[in-house]
Amino acid sequence: MAARKYLLSSFLSLTTAFALFFTWLHLSSPPPNVAELLDCAAYSPWCSSKSHPTNLGRDQNPTRRHDHSSDTPHHPLDPLTVTEINKARSILSSHPLFKSSPFSIHSLVLEEPNKSIVLKWKIGDPLPPRKAVVIARVNENSHVLTVDLTTANVVIRETGPHSGYPTMTVEEMNGATWVPLKSESFNQTILNRGIALSDLACLPISTGWFGAAEENRRLIKVQCYSMKDTANFYMRPIEGLTVLVDLDTQEVIEISDKGKNIPIPKAANTDYRYSAQPPNKVMKILNPISIEQPKGPSFSVEDNYLVKWGNWEFHLKPDPRAGSVIYGAKIRDPETGDLRDVIYKGYTSELFVPYMDPTDAWYFKTYMDAGEYGFGLQAMSLDPLNDCPRNAYYMDGVFAAADGKPYVRRNMICLFESYAGDIGWRHAESPITGMDITEVRPKVTLVARMAASVANYDYIVDWEFQTDGLIRIKVGLSGILMVKGTSYENTNQFPGEDLHGTLLSENVIGVIHDHYITFYLDMDIDGSDNSFVKVNLQRQRTSKGESPRKSYLKAVKKVAKTEKEAQIKLSLYDPSEFHVVNPSVKTRVGNPVGYKVVPAATAGNLLDLDDPPQRRGAFTNNQIWVTPYNRSEEWAGGQFVYQSHGEDTLQSWSDRDREIENKDIVVWYTLGFHHIPCQEDFPIMPTVSASFDLKPVNFFESNPILSFPPNTFEDLPVCKPAASA
Amino acid sequence: MAARKYLLSSFLSLTTAFALFFTWLHLSSPPPNVAELLDCAAYSPWCSSKSHPTNLGRDQNPTRRHDHSSDTPHHPLDPLTVTEINKARSILSSHPLFKSSPFSIHSLVLEEPNKSIVLKWKIGDPLPPRKAVVIARVNENSHVLTVDLTTANVVIRETGPHSGYPTMTVEEMNGATWVPLKSESFNQTILNRGIALSDLACLPISTGWFGAAEENRRLIKVQCYSMKDTANFYMRPIEGLTVLVDLDTQEVIEISDKGKNIPIPKAANTDYRYSAQPPNKVMKILNPISIEQPKGPSFSVEDNYLVKWGNWEFHLKPDPRAGSVIYGAKIRDPETGDLRDVIYKGYTSELFVPYMDPTDAWYFKTYMDAGEYGFGLQAMSLDPLNDCPRNAYYMDGVFAAADGKPYVRRNMICLFESYAGDIGWRHAESPITGMDITEVRPKVTLVARMAASVANYDYIVDWEFQTDGLIRIKVGLSGILMVKGTSYENTNQFPGEDLHGTLLSENVIGVIHDHYITFYLDMDIDGSDNSFVKVNLQRQRTSKGESPRKSYLKAVKKVAKTEKEAQIKLSLYDPSEFHVVNPSVKTRVGNPVGYKVVPAATAGNLLDLDDPPQRRGAFTNNQIWVTPYNRSEEWAGGQFVYQSHGEDTLQSWSDRDREIENKDIVVWYTLGFHHIPCQEDFPIMPTVSASFDLKPVNFFESNPILSFPPNTFEDLPVCKPAASA
Repeated sequence: MAARKYLLSSFLSLTTAFALFFTWLHLSSPPPNVAELLDCAAYSPWCSSKSHPTNLGRDQNPTRRHDHSSDTPHHPLDPLTVTEINKARSILSSHPLFKSSPFSIHSLVLEEPNKSIVLKWKIGDPLPPRKAVVIARVNENSHVLTVDLTTANVVIRETGPHSGYPTMTVEEMNGATWVPLKSESFNQTILNRGIALSDLACLPISTGWFGAAEENRRLIKVQCYSMKDTANFYMRPIEGLTVLVDLDTQEVIEISDKGKNIPIPKAANTDYRYSAQPPNKVMKILNPISIEQPKGPSFSVEDNYLVKWGNWEFHLKPDPRAGSVIYGAKIRDPETGDLRDVIYKGYTSELFVPYMDPTDAWYFKTYMDAGEYGFGLQAMSLDPLNDCPRNAYYMDGVFAAADGKPYVRRNMICLFESYAGDIGWRHAESPITGMDITEVRPKVTLVARMAASVANYDYIVDWEFQTDGLIRIKVGLSGILMVKGTSYENTNQFPGEDLHGTLLSENVIGVIHDHYITFYLDMDIDGSDNSFVKVNLQRQRTSKGESPRKSYLKAVKKVAKTEKEAQIKLSLYDPSEFHVVNPSVKTRVGNPVGYKVVPAATAGNLLDLDDPPQRRGAFTNNQIWVTPYNRSEEWAGGQFVYQSHGEDTLQSWSDRDREIENKDIVVWYTLGFHHIPCQEDFPIMPTVSASFDLKPVNFFESNPILSFPPNTFEDLPVCKPAASA
Repeated sequence: MAARKYLLSSFLSLTTAFALFFTWLHLSSPPPNVAELLDCAAYSPWCSSKSHPTNLGRDQNPTRRHDHSSDTPHHPLDPLTVTEINKARSILSSHPLFKSSPFSIHSLVLEEPNKSIVLKWKIGDPLPPRKAVVIARVNENSHVLTVDLTTANVVIRETGPHSGYPTMTVEEMNGATWVPLKSESFNQTILNRGIALSDLACLPISTGWFGAAEENRRLIKVQCYSMKDTANFYMRPIEGLTVLVDLDTQEVIEISDKGKNIPIPKAANTDYRYSAQPPNKVMKILNPISIEQPKGPSFSVEDNYLVKWGNWEFHLKPDPRAGSVIYGAKIRDPETGDLRDVIYKGYTSELFVPYMDPTDAWYFKTYMDAGEYGFGLQAMSLDPLNDCPRNAYYMDGVFAAADGKPYVRRNMICLFESYAGDIGWRHAESPITGMDITEVRPKVTLVARMAASVANYDYIVDWEFQTDGLIRIKVGLSGILMVKGTSYENTNQFPGEDLHGTLLSENVIGVIHDHYITFYLDMDIDGSDNSFVKVNLQRQRTSKGESPRKSYLKAVKKVAKTEKEAQIKLSLYDPSEFHVVNPSVKTRVGNPVGYKVVPAATAGNLLDLDDPPQRRGAFTNNQIWVTPYNRSEEWAGGQFVYQSHGEDTLQSWSDRDREIENKDIVVWYTLGFHHIPCQEDFPIMPTVSASFDLKPVNFFESNPILSFPPNTFEDLPVCKPAASA
């Protein structure tokens, strides 16, 4: 907070700051030297590595600081290295498009080689030519360029007409939060509300799209809070005050203030920092507990991104838009010893978070966190021993800043083995059979975790691999509610009135909202050509005299021939299993090998299909979709999702109704949450999680973990702290 | 297996065995002395304590052998002690009803005092009079008796007309498996199938009820398997052979053989025991992993059944029918320091497992594992370090055998703290706000676990308590499939034919089935009088000009006045939250305090309502029900569920439509699974789990774990094995 206040007063005294900001973005300076590059604070204010983890002594820090200066790629899908990002930036800087005008780089990532090339590639082969795909704004126009890092060739892609804009840069999100201060009227409004300008904290809120008034201009809405007396400024909204800002020019377009009479909540006891808790309130009521491995972890990470654990091998990489990406996931068959393909690529494709309040300062809150904010850009460094347990391995993100320079997000993903005391399989014989058998296997898993803090909310995304072949994809929601100020202090003041949420504390409403997280799952079950099979459980009535039973359930299989047959709305009363099978590969007894998508707790989207947010969020109209693989169909809300009109979504692709039988197919799954806030979510939310599974179904000949050993006391001696040993 | 073969040959040579069996049940012998009582093998063949845990050296065994001879009850709901069971048996033995005829005790448990008395009772008060409630069969009649342990008074309860029978005793289940051998025709059939009688393993299968032919007689169906060449005899069914047995007289009534031409599957590689794995196949690919607590666990168990952990206090007891029972669960309010009521009593009330095959040898498989077999009776001793991790506390069950004598089921429930590396809550600030904050709290829980092995299937039931007030009730399914023999060896032999399941291996079909587990949840939120509120999320369309939005979701609360308003069928497209609130206790800002029932993955029952199994399993017609507290309504399928006709179920009680607003109410939740077997389930199933939550909703003023500390490296020094230290 002190730093912020300092910056703020500096800003207010420096009228030239804004001009400098754009100068800084302009590629006039020479490329920084390596030392600067790796001390990211020297070239980008958005690197958090210098300050985290905060609770570690230097000698205890389990996360070695990886020197990224000499990184080289080892797999065709490995992300761009520091060197490669610099090279791309250097190539771009001599391109005519970037020579004459201010620009900003919105994305600079690997352009993946064609899948056929990747599939043919083997360890030891030279890598296919490395290329970068760049999304840049130049002169208020969006461009997509391919930069060949070997030939230095730059190709400007024809993107065709599209309504939306690229993902914001972190720099312009930040810039936008300062823009309102340029307005005297805004400053006066703040002062009239009794807030010192130095206590102001503002958030950049994507506007969505609601019609012609909001077109042909890149817009953002800025709303502000008071930081006075609490680090949890989110609980002190300056309600009803919305500043419409032009993102390109960073100018105020319009100020709307409909909350003049709404007090700023006092927000007592809302500071969630441990350092802010009164010592007499600290609840140290549990003894320390840890996952310990006397012989160390069982996994290894090779060549930066290749993970080997148990019977699994997969690649894992940080991505600025998707967060974490799994690629080339294979599992070893216990019978043949062969590694078998399961997933070509999987990641969080888009999020959709519509709030349920139609009033002026709230209706537009319909976030798409991946395409608007960058789900990976918002993933901060993880906190060892709290975000991830002992023996976690931490992976850094290497991303490009708005000026094209690389920076390092330290410890962005962690990888660890988890053991919760759960059971992999078991059976005990009852004494009735005369057999004295109790056979139990513990369940140990490998988790790849990231946590994105998209302003107030924290999304924890886990890819959890099990030795039995199951992959659980879990999303945890924590962080802080986006709350609404109100003049009410007790529910007895508004009998019957709809607040669009719950009164959580005096003057604080937790507004109802949904979360949808849509995953891209390019399944390759023993190869690329797969089919999607709905195994529907139907009630079958028996015919007269057939059986004392009147009914039973029958499994009816139907292969989806085209995309529309694979637009799935889940139903408790018309249940199905959803198999992705390879019709050309069968088990010994003749079942096609497959994996199934296993939904669990989720929420369906109930907004009107014609509501502008839902047109943009149409990828949540079904829980499952299947499309033929198409390298341009990566982002469920469209590549340019910011302010898009919804013309380039999974719904529009799927409605082309292409053939999907025995083809290279991509499965899309949407996990949903309805959230009616409650007082326990105040001032910070206990994590709520939901998940779905990808599970082998006749993929193996039999239980692949039959031959795993049980735990024994010999293998697990009681641990004593090393210090006391 | 050796023991079985020995027993079998002994049996075949001893024609007097059957007579002896009933003699043994007859209470002619004097009560055993204490030494005999505690060496349970001396008086009951169904005690497993003598042989488990099997993989422990004596000095490493973490489970002290509790001496139950001096146990005394400390709480009005504590289960009967060894002494009390003996006393009840002694009182009964002098009662005229038991003097003249053979009898069997089907249940001998605590008769709970009235709830009002229990609620008034405080630690230090004398216990209310201790009574036993006994269900006995005498002369082929079922009786329910109350035995006052202080006055020795016995009252025979009028049970009224009822179609069903009590839970089988383990002794008669066992007895039934030997009955077919009394039939020469059966023995010849077995020999004709090429099976030696000494390789026979038979299972007692409850018959359900399908009409008049099966009434007025206590029946069981026995089906058999070959134990030759595998401990996993379940994979070697003697398909189509069903022996109908009279449970009371232990006589063969009818033999049906419709599987003469179906071979016994070879079942190669189906032995799941570690000792049976070829050493070169053992997959030791993971390093040892353990949950370790340098300062030991944080929970304590006082007075045998009172658990204290973190902010929770609750009682936990083993029960022969329900398995594990939670009672008097309270959580400490962080603001007031007071313990506040959450659950008066919660347990597994009934299970329903209908198989989906209408043919002769399968249609009747519609198990109700609690009321027919005894969910607790089937819970075997847990395996330390595999069923439960380091630092688990093991609790014994003390039950009555068919002769009324007490026996001890060692280590039937375990209690342990779990830490999976998960996150209790977190928030990181984006650098945009200039705040350098990453605050994360690890998530640690307390699990109470039991595992019932109802013949082939294993049910793992977890009650998991979180410090944030949430209780997760989780059921894991593992064990072995009930499979069907077939002449098919490959799917290409039966194109289009419905096998009622999946071909899992040569000659083995995994038959489709459902599992339903219905929980009794007597919620007392800050006292007994509560209301059930449906908080329905409804789509609200905006009026013209109201908002750029066309729709949003609105929460509409409806208090259920009567039972029928609380018969809930879950729907993804008509979503609700389900709150149990105390309308008389409000938070500071006026919300009624409450807990909500939070469903997750589940399955709905799709059988015809008129199908006989579904009439009996009518308690699964809805996922949620709410009834007014009634001490006679404990078992969702009825007290006498064996062969019942479904006239005494939760459905019939609820249809009385009694008032439930601001009353002492009981919530019932049914967790469901559809199971279409796959090859990975063969020869033993990786655990599949599902759960639901009881979660505070405006119960606390704010997040109750705000003041919990994070993990630090100082608290969690790296553990080294003590041996090497």
